[in-house]
Amino acid sequence: MEDVRARYRRVFVDGSNTDRLVFFSDAVFAIAMTLLVIDLQVPADSSGTAWDVLVKEWPAFFAYALSFTIIAINWMSHHRKFRVITAHDGKLMLLDLVLLFVVAFVPFPTSLLSAYSPEPAAVVLYAFTVGLLSVLQYALWRYAYTKGLVDASVDLELYRYVRNAQWTTPAVFWLSIPIALLISGQVAMYFWFVLFPVNMALRVIRARGRRA
Amino acid sequence: MEDVRARYRRVFVDGSNTDRLVFFSDAVFAIAMTLLVIDLQVPADSSGTAWDVLVKEWPAFFAYALSFTIIAINWMSHHRKFRVITAHDGKLMLLDLVLLFVVAFVPFPTSLLSAYSPEPAAVVLYAFTVGLLSVLQYALWRYAYTKGLVDASVDLELYRYVRNAQWTTPAVFWLSIPIALLISGQVAMYFWFVLFPVNMALRVIRARGRRA
Amino acid sequence: MEDVRARYRRVFVDGSNTDRLVFFSDAVFAIAMTLLVIDLQVPADSSGTAWDVLVKEWPAFFAYALSFTIIAINWMSHHRKFRVITAHDGKLMLLDLVLLFVVAFVPFPTSLLSAYSPEPAAVVLYAFTVGLLSVLQYALWRYAYTKGLVDASVDLELYRYVRNAQWTTPAVFWLSIPIALLISGQVAMYFWFVLFPVNMALRVIRARGRRA
Amino acid sequence: MEDVRARYRRVFVDGSNTDRLVFFSDAVFAIAMTLLVIDLQVPADSSGTAWDVLVKEWPAFFAYALSFTIIAINWMSHHRKFRVITAHDGKLMLLDLVLLFVVAFVPFPTSLLSAYSPEPAAVVLYAFTVGLLSVLQYALWRYAYTKGLVDASVDLELYRYVRNAQWTTPAVFWLSIPIALLISGQVAMYFWFVLFPVNMALRVIRARGRRA
Repeated sequence: MEDVRARYRRVFVDGSNTDRLVFFSDAVFAIAMTLLVIDLQVPADSSGTAWDVLVKEWPAFFAYALSFTIIAINWMSHHRKFRVITAHDGKLMLLDLVLLFVVAFVPFPTSLLSAYSPEPAAVVLYAFTVGLLSVLQYALWRYAYTKGLVDASVDLELYRYVRNAQWTTPAVFWLSIPIALLISGQVAMYFWFVLFPVNMALRVIRARGRRA
Repeated sequence: MEDVRARYRRVFVDGSNTDRLVFFSDAVFAIAMTLLVIDLQVPADSSGTAWDVLVKEWPAFFAYALSFTIIAINWMSHHRKFRVITAHDGKLMLLDLVLLFVVAFVPFPTSLLSAYSPEPAAVVLYAFTVGLLSVLQYALWRYAYTKGLVDASVDLELYRYVRNAQWTTPAVFWLSIPIALLISGQVAMYFWFVLFPVNMALRVIRARGRRA
Repeated sequence: MEDVRARYRRVFVDGSNTDRLVFFSDAVFAIAMTLLVIDLQVPADSSGTAWDVLVKEWPAFFAYALSFTIIAINWMSHHRKFRVITAHDGKLMLLDLVLLFVVAFVPFPTSLLSAYSPEPAAVVLYAFTVGLLSVLQYALWRYAYTKGLVDASVDLELYRYVRNAQWTTPAVFWLSIPIALLISGQVAMYFWFVLFPVNMALRVIRARGRRA
Repeated sequence: MEDVRARYRRVFVDGSNTDRLVFFSDAVFAIAMTLLVIDLQVPADSSGTAWDVLVKEWPAFFAYALSFTIIAINWMSHHRKFRVITAHDGKLMLLDLVLLFVVAFVPFPTSLLSAYSPEPAAVVLYAFTVGLLSVLQYALWRYAYTKGLVDASVDLELYRYVRNAQWTTPAVFWLSIPIALLISGQVAMYFWFVLFPVNMALRVIRARGRRA
C-alpha cells in the first residue's frame, strides 16, 4: 500500500496543472517591471526646473529601460517554456521561486547602476544578476525536460534549440565582469551591446546548420 | 519536412490563446494605476497642519486623477481589443510589451507634472507619453487585424470604426506640445480639455455618416 | 440591418462574461491593500532604538490595520456581488473603474490620518473616502440589478437584502464628518466604532422581520 | 421555505469554487514578496562609492532574502492546501484575509530588522510575525478539514501529516522571543537556524514512524 509520504506528494506536491504557478510567476514579473519606475521618482526638493530633472534623470531612465527590457525578455522566455511545461513537481516549483527571487531583486542593481554607473561594483552586480537570470531559465528548462514535465510536442531537437539560445546572455554579461574589474566599468557596459551582433550571428549559424 | 525553426514558432511563439498575455497586461495596467498614489504620499516632516498638506497636494491630486483616468481608458480600450484578438504571434506580443513599457512609465511624467506644472518640459513629456499610448494602441489593433489574429466577428467596417476612434487623443495631446513650447505650458494644459468637445463632435459626425 | 455602432457595442462593449473585469478589480484591491504597508516604513535616520520606532509608529499601525480591514471588507462585498453579476455593459465597467479609483486612493487618506490624526481635515477626508466606497458599491449593485446583469438566482427579496446592508457604513462615516468639524476629530474617530453595535442591531431587526 | 438569510449564504457566501479566493491570495503574496526590494533602495545622497552602499546594505540584503524565503514557503504551503480545499464559506474567507493581513505586513518587521538588528524589539516583532503566519496556516487547514471543505483525496492520516509539519516554525520562532528578551537579540537570530536540523530530524522520525 502507498505510504502517507507518497500520497502527500501525489495529492499536494506533484501536479498535472501549472496554471497557478504560471499565474504567480506572471504577477511577480509584472510587479518587478512596474516597480522599476519608482526609482525614476522626482526629487522632493523642487530646486531647479523640470528640464534639470530630466537631464539629471537621464542615466536612471537608461537603467529603467534596460531593466524593463531584460525582465520583459525573461518573461517572454518563461511564458514560452510554460506553454509546453504542463506538469510540475516540488523541485520545479523551487527552481521557479529561485528565478522569481532574482527577478524581484532586479530593481536593486538597477537602482545602484542608475546612481553609480560606471563604478565597477555597480556594473559587476548588474551584470552578475542579468547573467544569473538566464542560467536559472536554463536550469528550469533542463530540469523540466529531463523529468518529463513537458508535453509531447517537445522532442530532443526542439529541446536543444531552446536550450542553445540561452547561453549568449550569461556569456556576454558574465564576460563583462572581468572587463569591469580589470579595464573599466564604462567599457564593460559598452560590451553588453555585443549581445546584439552575437545573437544575430547565432541565428545565421543555426539557419545554415539546418539547411546543411 | 517542417524544419526546427518553424516548429519552434508553432509550438512556442504563435498561439491561438491570448489568456496569459491578457492576464499579464492587466496586471501591469493595474499596478501602474495603483502605484500613482505613492506620489501623493504625505511629507515625512509634519510641519503645518493636515489642511496645509491637502492644499499643497492639490496639483498632485489633479495629476493623479488625470493619469488614473488615462490608464483606465487605455485599459478599457485594450480589454475591448483583446475580446476579439484571439490569436497571437511574436510581434503582437512585442507590440504589447512596448505598450506596457509606456503604461508602466506613466507614473514618472505624472510625478514631474505634479511637481513642475506648468513648466513646458513637464507638460511636453506628459503630452508626448499620453499621445504615444494611443499610437501604440492603434499599431496593435492594425497589426492584429492585418495579420488575421482577430476572430470572425470583426469585418472591415468594424475594424475601421475602432481604428478611427483612436486618432483624437494623440492629435490633441501632440498638438499641445508646440503650444507648450511656443506659447505656454498653462495654455497647453487647458488645450487637453479640447478632447471632450472633439470626441463628442466625432460621435455626432459618425452617427450622421451612418444614417446617410 | 444592425448599424456599426450597435455591432460595436455587442462585440466590444457588452458581454456575458465578467472574468476579466473581476480579475482586474481583484488586482487593484490586492495592490492597494499591500501598498498600505509602505507608509509603515522605518525612518531612514536610525536615531533612537527599534523600540522608539514601534512606539512612534503605533498610530500608523492603527491606520494601516483600519484601512486594510476596510479594503478587505469592500473586496469581499465586491467578490460576492460579482458571483451573481454575470454580464456587463460599458456603464457597469465605468462604475467599477470609479470604485477602483477610490480603492486605489485609500493609501493617501490613510497616510494623512496616520500623520495628522485627530486633526479635522485628516479625519474628514478619511471618513468621506470610506463612505464613498460603500455608496459606489451600492450604485454598482443597483445598476447591475436594474439592468438585468445578474443571474436568475437573485430575486427582488435577495436584491433588497444585499442593498439594505450597504447603508450603515456611509451613514456612520458621513455622520462623523460634521462631528469632526463641529466637535472634535477625536470624538469623530471614536464614533466610527458605533458601526459595530449598529450592524449587530440591524442583524437582529432583520432576523425578526423574517420571522414576523 | 428557505428564508432570505439562508438563501443569501447559499448564493453569495458559501461556494464550491475557490478560484477567486486563491487568485486574490496569490496576488497579495506576490506583491508582498516583490515590495520587499523597496527597502533595498539606494540612498538618495550619493556620498561614497557603489561598493560602500553594498557593504552598508548587507544586513538589509540578508533581511530581504530571509523574508522572501519565508513568504515563498508560506505561499507554497497555501498553494498546496488550496489544491484540496475546493469549497469555501464566509469564515474560511475571513481566516484567509487575516493570513493575508500578516503576509502584507511582513515588509515592516523586515525593514525594522534590517535597520535595527540585533536590538531585541526588532528581533521580537520579526519572530512573532513569522510564527503567526504558521499558526494562521494551521488554523486555516484545521478549519477547512473540520468543516468538510476539502475534497475526497484527503483522509485523516493525510490531514494529520500536513498539520504536524506546521508546528516547527512557530515553536522555533516563538521560543526565540524569550531568548531575545532575556539573553540577546543576536543569540535569538542564530537560534532561528535551529529550524533546519529540527525539520530534518522530524522528517527522519516521521519516515521511521511509517515503517514501524
